[in-house]
Amino acid sequence: MTSIFEVSPRCKELQKKLIDFVENDCLPAEEVYESQVGVGAQRWTTIPPIMEELKAKAKSLGLWNLFLPKSYPEGPGLTNLEYATLCEITGRCPRVAPEALNCSAPDTGNMEVFAKYGTPEQKQKYLVPLMNGEIRSAFAMTEFAVSSSDATNIETNIERVGDHYIINGRKWWISGAGDPRCKVYLVMGKSDPNNENMHRQQSLVIVPSDTPGIEVVRPMTVYGYDDAPEGHCEVNFTNVKVPVSNIVLGEGRGFEIIQGRLGPGRIHHCMRAIGMAERTLDTMIARVTDPSRRTFGKVLALHGTVAADVAKIRIEINAARLMVLAAADKIDKSNAKGAMRDIAMAKVMVPQMLQRAVDLAIQAHGAAGLSQDFILARFAAGARTLRIADGPDEVHIMQLARFELKRGDEIRKKNKAIKARHAQIVDNGSKL
Amino acid sequence: MTSIFEVSPRCKELQKKLIDFVENDCLPAEEVYESQVGVGAQRWTTIPPIMEELKAKAKSLGLWNLFLPKSYPEGPGLTNLEYATLCEITGRCPRVAPEALNCSAPDTGNMEVFAKYGTPEQKQKYLVPLMNGEIRSAFAMTEFAVSSSDATNIETNIERVGDHYIINGRKWWISGAGDPRCKVYLVMGKSDPNNENMHRQQSLVIVPSDTPGIEVVRPMTVYGYDDAPEGHCEVNFTNVKVPVSNIVLGEGRGFEIIQGRLGPGRIHHCMRAIGMAERTLDTMIARVTDPSRRTFGKVLALHGTVAADVAKIRIEINAARLMVLAAADKIDKSNAKGAMRDIAMAKVMVPQMLQRAVDLAIQAHGAAGLSQDFILARFAAGARTLRIADGPDEVHIMQLARFELKRGDEIRKKNKAIKARHAQIVDNGSKL
Amino acid sequence: MTSIFEVSPRCKELQKKLIDFVENDCLPAEEVYESQVGVGAQRWTTIPPIMEELKAKAKSLGLWNLFLPKSYPEGPGLTNLEYATLCEITGRCPRVAPEALNCSAPDTGNMEVFAKYGTPEQKQKYLVPLMNGEIRSAFAMTEFAVSSSDATNIETNIERVGDHYIINGRKWWISGAGDPRCKVYLVMGKSDPNNENMHRQQSLVIVPSDTPGIEVVRPMTVYGYDDAPEGHCEVNFTNVKVPVSNIVLGEGRGFEIIQGRLGPGRIHHCMRAIGMAERTLDTMIARVTDPSRRTFGKVLALHGTVAADVAKIRIEINAARLMVLAAADKIDKSNAKGAMRDIAMAKVMVPQMLQRAVDLAIQAHGAAGLSQDFILARFAAGARTLRIADGPDEVHIMQLARFELKRGDEIRKKNKAIKARHAQIVDNGSKL
Amino acid sequence: MTSIFEVSPRCKELQKKLIDFVENDCLPAEEVYESQVGVGAQRWTTIPPIMEELKAKAKSLGLWNLFLPKSYPEGPGLTNLEYATLCEITGRCPRVAPEALNCSAPDTGNMEVFAKYGTPEQKQKYLVPLMNGEIRSAFAMTEFAVSSSDATNIETNIERVGDHYIINGRKWWISGAGDPRCKVYLVMGKSDPNNENMHRQQSLVIVPSDTPGIEVVRPMTVYGYDDAPEGHCEVNFTNVKVPVSNIVLGEGRGFEIIQGRLGPGRIHHCMRAIGMAERTLDTMIARVTDPSRRTFGKVLALHGTVAADVAKIRIEINAARLMVLAAADKIDKSNAKGAMRDIAMAKVMVPQMLQRAVDLAIQAHGAAGLSQDFILARFAAGARTLRIADGPDEVHIMQLARFELKRGDEIRKKNKAIKARHAQIVDNGSKL
Repeated sequence: MTSIFEVSPRCKELQKKLIDFVENDCLPAEEVYESQVGVGAQRWTTIPPIMEELKAKAKSLGLWNLFLPKSYPEGPGLTNLEYATLCEITGRCPRVAPEALNCSAPDTGNMEVFAKYGTPEQKQKYLVPLMNGEIRSAFAMTEFAVSSSDATNIETNIERVGDHYIINGRKWWISGAGDPRCKVYLVMGKSDPNNENMHRQQSLVIVPSDTPGIEVVRPMTVYGYDDAPEGHCEVNFTNVKVPVSNIVLGEGRGFEIIQGRLGPGRIHHCMRAIGMAERTLDTMIARVTDPSRRTFGKVLALHGTVAADVAKIRIEINAARLMVLAAADKIDKSNAKGAMRDIAMAKVMVPQMLQRAVDLAIQAHGAAGLSQDFILARFAAGARTLRIADGPDEVHIMQLARFELKRGDEIRKKNKAIKARHAQIVDNGSKL
Repeated sequence: MTSIFEVSPRCKELQKKLIDFVENDCLPAEEVYESQVGVGAQRWTTIPPIMEELKAKAKSLGLWNLFLPKSYPEGPGLTNLEYATLCEITGRCPRVAPEALNCSAPDTGNMEVFAKYGTPEQKQKYLVPLMNGEIRSAFAMTEFAVSSSDATNIETNIERVGDHYIINGRKWWISGAGDPRCKVYLVMGKSDPNNENMHRQQSLVIVPSDTPGIEVVRPMTVYGYDDAPEGHCEVNFTNVKVPVSNIVLGEGRGFEIIQGRLGPGRIHHCMRAIGMAERTLDTMIARVTDPSRRTFGKVLALHGTVAADVAKIRIEINAARLMVLAAADKIDKSNAKGAMRDIAMAKVMVPQMLQRAVDLAIQAHGAAGLSQDFILARFAAGARTLRIADGPDEVHIMQLARFELKRGDEIRKKNKAIKARHAQIVDNGSKL
Repeated sequence: MTSIFEVSPRCKELQKKLIDFVENDCLPAEEVYESQVGVGAQRWTTIPPIMEELKAKAKSLGLWNLFLPKSYPEGPGLTNLEYATLCEITGRCPRVAPEALNCSAPDTGNMEVFAKYGTPEQKQKYLVPLMNGEIRSAFAMTEFAVSSSDATNIETNIERVGDHYIINGRKWWISGAGDPRCKVYLVMGKSDPNNENMHRQQSLVIVPSDTPGIEVVRPMTVYGYDDAPEGHCEVNFTNVKVPVSNIVLGEGRGFEIIQGRLGPGRIHHCMRAIGMAERTLDTMIARVTDPSRRTFGKVLALHGTVAADVAKIRIEINAARLMVLAAADKIDKSNAKGAMRDIAMAKVMVPQMLQRAVDLAIQAHGAAGLSQDFILARFAAGARTLRIADGPDEVHIMQLARFELKRGDEIRKKNKAIKARHAQIVDNGSKL
Repeated sequence: MTSIFEVSPRCKELQKKLIDFVENDCLPAEEVYESQVGVGAQRWTTIPPIMEELKAKAKSLGLWNLFLPKSYPEGPGLTNLEYATLCEITGRCPRVAPEALNCSAPDTGNMEVFAKYGTPEQKQKYLVPLMNGEIRSAFAMTEFAVSSSDATNIETNIERVGDHYIINGRKWWISGAGDPRCKVYLVMGKSDPNNENMHRQQSLVIVPSDTPGIEVVRPMTVYGYDDAPEGHCEVNFTNVKVPVSNIVLGEGRGFEIIQGRLGPGRIHHCMRAIGMAERTLDTMIARVTDPSRRTFGKVLALHGTVAADVAKIRIEINAARLMVLAAADKIDKSNAKGAMRDIAMAKVMVPQMLQRAVDLAIQAHGAAGLSQDFILARFAAGARTLRIADGPDEVHIMQLARFELKRGDEIRKKNKAIKARHAQIVDNGSKL
């Protein structure tokens, strides 16, 4: 961790406690958790007991709900920058640690929505049990039929009929929808599809998961992984009916809500990815320096390309971490909107870095690196997903490009001034 | 297919027939096959009926055992170059088509070993049913405890005791060992571990799969795929006893056998990978030109980076294909040893090309590209595996480098001659 | 040279002779030539005597005007493929060998224009002395004020007034215009700028270099090199007047002419670039295996990354060569238009390959690699230029992409057929 | 400039003043300076008058000798981090601005050596006029005959004879040696070549440039640039005799001195490279948004790949800047040795970033980007040089790798502890 981003003594203490918890409890419990998830249909009905134990322990250690930023009275009062440093620690054990702390997606983003926009009733009903880790939630945005990377494409219909909304749509990649504890969906759809302002057509509606008309069709796989029990599911909404009081913030405010929701979430993802990259590098180093694994008379690390790869990963991780921390810091000092470019840069850079790091580490492991015996193959899937989730690279790059290209006029104006001054110098006998 | 590599009219006819078979039978049967493989433990006991149908049809079409090169009377008389062009076609449907033609690894390599080195008895017992597609086989080389990319590291012990060999060792990544039809292993081990010549320590022994002492421990996964029913299994050999007549070629000849076995096999893999890359590109083009998928007002292909990626993949595929065909041609004109460098170059280049192509295609698909709904995620796993299987990139690169670097003296000598002649010209008043 | 592209015995003999000439005369004369070019203003007035000697010798050896393809009676009767193999040989010594053989750009392309489209008078006046190596020529297309990568942007005006054309325009990067032997320009301009067909607006006009109104303003530099005596010059045409008989092929045919002119020229450039890459690799190998240059106790080649780089360059060169030869072969078997995609692919791939190879070789040399003591820095400039000259990468990539993307409908149709057949199989109880 | 690295109000004021000076004086004077350097032999004898004017102005503005860090009473009291932010500003105009501020290499490093290790007499004679900008200096380390990236290879002999040292050696790439104002060399050589400690063999000796036996043989070129009047020269030392009082710090301390000298210098180079990259990006943006430059109907920026490249350069610049600032901050908080890894990471990352950025910007400019009309070609030479100067990438990567790989044992130990704890959990019925 670079020392230049100062954190509070309280945060330092949390870091220390969290490192202990991850190393002594989460990482050792990783395989136990996987085995408790089980096989076949059971994968979608089981709540692995070890997770509940870990949650209890984390709560008792004060490592609970750390994600809620300073502005919320319900939270622990950490800055985004401070929380980011903790995400790196849980990121080393991404299947277990974040959930153990009640800090895993998509619940964190959803809790923030409830905390920021929820009515007292909505908070009581959903925020309280979510923050207690008693229930889980899902955010239903991505759709099967359209390119959801452009959020204005969303087609799910939210129609007001009397005192209710009737929801119809086909969603997929709904993370968490497979979990038996998932009790509530936040559903994004169009309540006003003809509104001239394309960013006012959408609304966000709270839908209890046991509402009639909801069908969890199937889990999607990522490189063969189903990520049970949460899963990333295809979910159909057919004439799903909820009272109008289930609207969040108000009709036509959906776009506004996701704008705020995604920024910090992207930083959390990125920072956990830094943790994954550090574990990847550690795994690679342990392998290539293993004195018992020699090829052509040498420990792997003594083959020059392997050592160079190790150094390159180190450089890339450190640069990526600085970018994420800088973005987190920017959120703290302005807000998610003010930090939009910084967030976008981190969001593009970090998953690509992780993908490269994991790929090199896999290669250094040989076939073992692809298998269930190491975490690397799962990380490869995770890294690959991150380049698409919460907006694919292309969208962020386009956004960044647009911002930079706007500077064209200003640069040309400056160049003109330089030329004019140059002419003046020349006219002056090449004197200032 | 580039026209510059001429193939016989017979091969052209086979190409045509094979394209029909793949498009009309194999590709449509792909999902049927997957579903027949089933779920859970059943995956390792089922022989999907559709495969047996496809095999019967391929046989009736004369598309059977095409892999056996010209030199074998048992084969169809194709050159390596000609067979390579057919591999590209089956490569578009790699889960189904190669096996349907009885041309899938590891059986092809094993059949070639039997055909080339087998005694009449060995041929009768194993080559005949293999060539009939009645049984399957495995090649047991890679080991758990050592870096098998350096084949001299192999530790499995083959001890002669009287008229038998006693085999002890822990193998893994034994492709095909999970298949209920797998009736025979070719086991590589050390019969003379102290031989001064490191390439004479190994022997290859035929081991029927029902020999006591063999335990198929578990299937390894690649990313999250188990590739049932063949699988890539961990297999323990504990005091496994076979008669000395089960030796292939003779004691101490193991290294020699794999040298010859792997060359053409690598070309087959590479050429199928070209087919996978073409399907990848087709899949990407279909997606990005889909008029119903628009982002920010444009069909995906109209976003410039997507179009550029399509062109880059095309260039890389064509270059890779030429390299594989050139290597196949070289095998035909000299032999596997004479074509060693060409094979190594193709082996390094093609899987990396496929990995990049698949990665770009996935990105163009968004999350869908990672899922079971498209072939791309499986291809990602396949491409990644190919960079390790049959020797990781690094081994081939090292080999190629060694060859090039040997030219140092010769180049310096030539440079010296140029300098001498230059001095002569200068001395001659800067005249020739 | 890969053996799979068969060339005639005559070509093989030329290869042998040419290798001798390049190694024994051209390479040793390289520094002599550079020193004879001189310094300061003299660079643009000198004709280095060693070049005239080399030309005489090449002529006497029958190594003269080899570029003119089979279809021309004036030429040596080589196929494009055969000539390409010779270009690789001269490419090892690009400053000296191509001109020594009277096979250097832009003369080759210009001679082909005269040979293909010239009237008997034009041929007599320009083609004959060009083919004798008595004069040189330039092709004036690129313009200062517009993006010439889109040739329809050209603004130079060619106005017919009575029996003359009056030419006005500002050209730059006119290679060869600095040479005192340059006696004729082929000038591309718009004679019919309002023609609805954007490819019929242009005409090509022959302009003797001593015509009043032509001003060679300055040589442009490339990475600090001026490439004297040819140079790449800015040239102004102010009311330059030539008789209407100086039109080539006819008014409005300019676009058509350059289409045909550039294809084979690109292949020549690419193939010389392969020769440059081979020399680059040789230079690198000589350096890194030099026993007298050790770092940290080891000859450079024993540092693993250096060896791996050598292997990667080898793979890239071989793949690139196959692509160029395949394109040359395609021109022979169809024509430049039919080979357009193959040419474009080679044109994109080869210069990028050369750029990477040179960059790695420079790095292996340390600062020496950047200096006048090695050819590498010049090659870096050459490689960089090639990515822009004769159409930048982007234009070729766009063209290739457009071609591929057109296949979208066809692929979707095929996919539909596969789905229909799949449904049929499923309906048939999962039987074929 | 990222806001997260706080600088003092005084530094902020300097930043503002410096931006004005660079924009209003240095950039407009750039071409004037180039033209005053002249042509031919004159390039090595001229002191461009505009530079002396700029120096006077900078001095009057208090923008003088800013490089000397806080610890020196002679300096302005800035931290390394603060000075780094100023280097980015001068880096936008690297040929003119750093020297105008008396902050250009190699003088800065040499002044620091005098300030840190010089005797009062040495300071009086050399440091004072250097700090006044009256003379210039050179650092003679790199040698012709050996790989100087491994500093222990240096062969220049420094022999003590009576009260003098006699120096013999062949140096090259001695920056500044071509400048008529260069009055002193710091020469690194071996005074004790047989010392068992390879880092105690070297001494650093002060050599006035008019000492007999010094021959400036020739300027080396980088690509085609000679960087006159400073130049990077080959310099022979033949029986060069200086009094023993000219030793710096003491015999055998040469290695120790360069260790300290190079760290901060690398940061200055890196930070100026950030400024070069920002100007590169600005230049590219101005070009691709230029409404008058259209290809295929669109302004260049609307071709998607160009926009994406702009965004990627932005991301890479920002990440690189953070890495340099973090390293500068680390030097401030520990020292050059404590920041060694951070410096090495920045040193590897920044020049590669700049090289990529410049290459993309050149491509967006077409041939113009390679020429004297834009700064890009010079920046390409600068970026390429930086990957070699002050230690090639490979040396820093090797150093970083060694550090990382040392962690192998510790990681394996931790992994063992995790496994042990895992076993404990399993034994406990899969409970914590």
